[in-house]
Amino acid sequence: MVQHILTASQFKDRELLGEIFSRANYFQEIHLLPKNDQVRKDARKKIRETLDDQSVGIFFYEPSTRTGSSFQRAVHNLGGEVIKSENAGQFSSAIKGESIEDSIKTMEKYAEIIILRHPEIGSASRAAAVSQVPIINAGDGAGEHPTQALLDLYTIQREIGTFDNLKIALVGDLLNGRTIHSLTQLLEVAQNTELFLVAPDPLQLPEKYRKMLQAKNIKFRETDSLAEVLPHADVVYMTRIQKERFGTDTALYEQVKNSFILGPEEVNKMQKDAILMHPLPRVNEISPEVDKLPQARYFDQVENGVYIRMSLLEHLAQAATT
Amino acid sequence: MVQHILTASQFKDRELLGEIFSRANYFQEIHLLPKNDQVRKDARKKIRETLDDQSVGIFFYEPSTRTGSSFQRAVHNLGGEVIKSENAGQFSSAIKGESIEDSIKTMEKYAEIIILRHPEIGSASRAAAVSQVPIINAGDGAGEHPTQALLDLYTIQREIGTFDNLKIALVGDLLNGRTIHSLTQLLEVAQNTELFLVAPDPLQLPEKYRKMLQAKNIKFRETDSLAEVLPHADVVYMTRIQKERFGTDTALYEQVKNSFILGPEEVNKMQKDAILMHPLPRVNEISPEVDKLPQARYFDQVENGVYIRMSLLEHLAQAATT
Amino acid sequence: MVQHILTASQFKDRELLGEIFSRANYFQEIHLLPKNDQVRKDARKKIRETLDDQSVGIFFYEPSTRTGSSFQRAVHNLGGEVIKSENAGQFSSAIKGESIEDSIKTMEKYAEIIILRHPEIGSASRAAAVSQVPIINAGDGAGEHPTQALLDLYTIQREIGTFDNLKIALVGDLLNGRTIHSLTQLLEVAQNTELFLVAPDPLQLPEKYRKMLQAKNIKFRETDSLAEVLPHADVVYMTRIQKERFGTDTALYEQVKNSFILGPEEVNKMQKDAILMHPLPRVNEISPEVDKLPQARYFDQVENGVYIRMSLLEHLAQAATT
Repeated sequence: MVQHILTASQFKDRELLGEIFSRANYFQEIHLLPKNDQVRKDARKKIRETLDDQSVGIFFYEPSTRTGSSFQRAVHNLGGEVIKSENAGQFSSAIKGESIEDSIKTMEKYAEIIILRHPEIGSASRAAAVSQVPIINAGDGAGEHPTQALLDLYTIQREIGTFDNLKIALVGDLLNGRTIHSLTQLLEVAQNTELFLVAPDPLQLPEKYRKMLQAKNIKFRETDSLAEVLPHADVVYMTRIQKERFGTDTALYEQVKNSFILGPEEVNKMQKDAILMHPLPRVNEISPEVDKLPQARYFDQVENGVYIRMSLLEHLAQAATT
Repeated sequence: MVQHILTASQFKDRELLGEIFSRANYFQEIHLLPKNDQVRKDARKKIRETLDDQSVGIFFYEPSTRTGSSFQRAVHNLGGEVIKSENAGQFSSAIKGESIEDSIKTMEKYAEIIILRHPEIGSASRAAAVSQVPIINAGDGAGEHPTQALLDLYTIQREIGTFDNLKIALVGDLLNGRTIHSLTQLLEVAQNTELFLVAPDPLQLPEKYRKMLQAKNIKFRETDSLAEVLPHADVVYMTRIQKERFGTDTALYEQVKNSFILGPEEVNKMQKDAILMHPLPRVNEISPEVDKLPQARYFDQVENGVYIRMSLLEHLAQAATT
Repeated sequence: MVQHILTASQFKDRELLGEIFSRANYFQEIHLLPKNDQVRKDARKKIRETLDDQSVGIFFYEPSTRTGSSFQRAVHNLGGEVIKSENAGQFSSAIKGESIEDSIKTMEKYAEIIILRHPEIGSASRAAAVSQVPIINAGDGAGEHPTQALLDLYTIQREIGTFDNLKIALVGDLLNGRTIHSLTQLLEVAQNTELFLVAPDPLQLPEKYRKMLQAKNIKFRETDSLAEVLPHADVVYMTRIQKERFGTDTALYEQVKNSFILGPEEVNKMQKDAILMHPLPRVNEISPEVDKLPQARYFDQVENGVYIRMSLLEHLAQAATT
């Protein structure tokens, strides 16, 4: 049976997650060796055999320079070729009326793995239902973005040393943020987590996810005050209030868009060894002066994403040949 | 002299066509071996030397995810690099007023082979007239699309075992369909073909092509009834009625757009060993329930296209070095 | 310290320039050997180790098929992979409000070298100020385009044998042409240059650059008569009057757009061994009939650009590992 990566909840198994993180960590350590180091060269050469003679389709109906480039780099590092269609929705067969199912049944003839971004919730599952090659969900509208959740949790483990026994503040548009939704599900794998759900009231976490947290006995508290939780959190996970998720309700967007803004003064209220994360891009919710503070780890997240995606691609490629 | 692939009529020679199909078939058989098979690995490595150290320009003034991706995969399989400009018309030098001749005289400095899609009939020939590298016509407006015609005929031979002595129904917009125009010309190579030209009256095959059929003694019959020919055809070749070819005449488009729709009931009236083809993308002219019937071969066409394009690229690359 | 390529004025050192040109010339000579020549094969294989296992980001906020493809080919020739974002401004994080600094701090995690084109003057310097990887300025608005200036000067040396003691006519929109601005600065490296600045009065070279020429003791004469200087120049460097640089002032554009048009009659007034250059694309300022005259070298410039860019990329890659 073909394996896919559709939801963060697939990685609730600590053993599987441990393997994914362990390989990501290996790839990262090798990369960090000096460029002329023979160990690095030999290891990278071996790693490049993983997708040797294979092409990976990056099939994005919604543009994303960041996620698309991260996957491209991961594929390059594994020795594969990329077939990219960055505006699949706007420019291609879709405009001629083709269904996503037909598009997938076409792309699967060109690529051994398909990485899909699509504006509709559930699109990745629809794709997986017909695909003969692995699908990676790289974002399905306000649905999920599992590889982001995995790189987030990997960053927490890498920077703090563990993802257990932590107080984590999720901040921003918890209603629409798919990054938040995926991470919330994935946190089930962690032990003894305490969540602060920090959002303006109309943008709080959907009931579906709150019920899930209750069912899993994950403690959480809802608040609209970031100041109140800053000194207590081990991890502050900021998100952008995304204008494009509000549709025509610009009044609500204007009301909430500046709800949370972190400058150096606020960040200095965090614990010294706490970390500040953000899936990026940011607008004004974290000021650039914060970047040099020790808590800031959002650009490390970007870097970690390449290695997590390498690990996931390797996982799928190995499953496909056995 | 530089060789180009501009029109399907270049492949009327059975010996040349046989070589192209034979190599495509070889590439396909190798690909279908298990991924860990050493024979596959060795053969693919040798095949990847074909375009080693070469770059192929995919230069599309009109977007096409499907054709573009198919060529990309073919280039990857042959070991070449791709330089892609998917919206050459909208975003680049063309908007600054550059002629297609100047664009080609530029691109030929970057690429050993240029694959061109352009909205104007004759554009590929204009390109070839000034180019010092091979040009492949990947669609010139309502003109031709020779690599599609070749993969179509290759599919017929692969699925039926021969392309001679067949009754072939061409269905849809025969007036504007460049796929149809290219295939019609290529069919001259087949012996004892009988064509059913199935179209609403205003969309019948242009006189130019009907005269060509008469000159070649290829039997054909025009009709607007698909039901009538379904039980008799060995090949039913459906095409989409393409809205974009009607310009402002939306009334005509609305009148003809649902002329032919195939569901399981209709397809079951075909012979059991007949095949149903479509260049894709489809809109509603073949319902998805048909996909599982034994006659459906349109996704096989997609797959076959990669190997035909590999064979054509190899042909041009070898001609360039001798 | 990370090296960047931001302005042509970095290459005023004759020794450095000589090295860049010498390597470009070597790459070009190897490429011109017959494809089956073993010396060519071995040398190209060695050259492909330069960017082995590295990815280069082509990050264009403004589209440019020509410059983008030239860099792509250069990266391919050096064995690197390309991560391309051709409409970074229109389609990606920028539209979500991300600063160029954040975009660079993201892309530097994906690519060992970043090639940046951006519509704002100074954007490349802003990028370099935060980047941990080398930035190549591939055009920053009406600012500079140093790799174009380098390929221009390389073409002059290759075609005439020297870039010293020459009379050079710069023709067209000298006010806004960044190609002109970069070349003017680079010409400081040449000895005993005499410049003819040929432009309609409102489009003459900005005072900043004229003062620079005076400070360097480079002789120059301003004129709006091309006919007058044609018989005297060793190099005639034509440029397009770029509509997009005039903003809403269409009246001025209409007035000046046809100021200089070269047909065969005009070019025949040039000296027999003088050369006619143009950064391309052209609109109507050089008629196609001129292309076959011995003076025409603009398509050679295109070809030379690949080798200059290879040389610059090699230079940066070597600096990064030492």
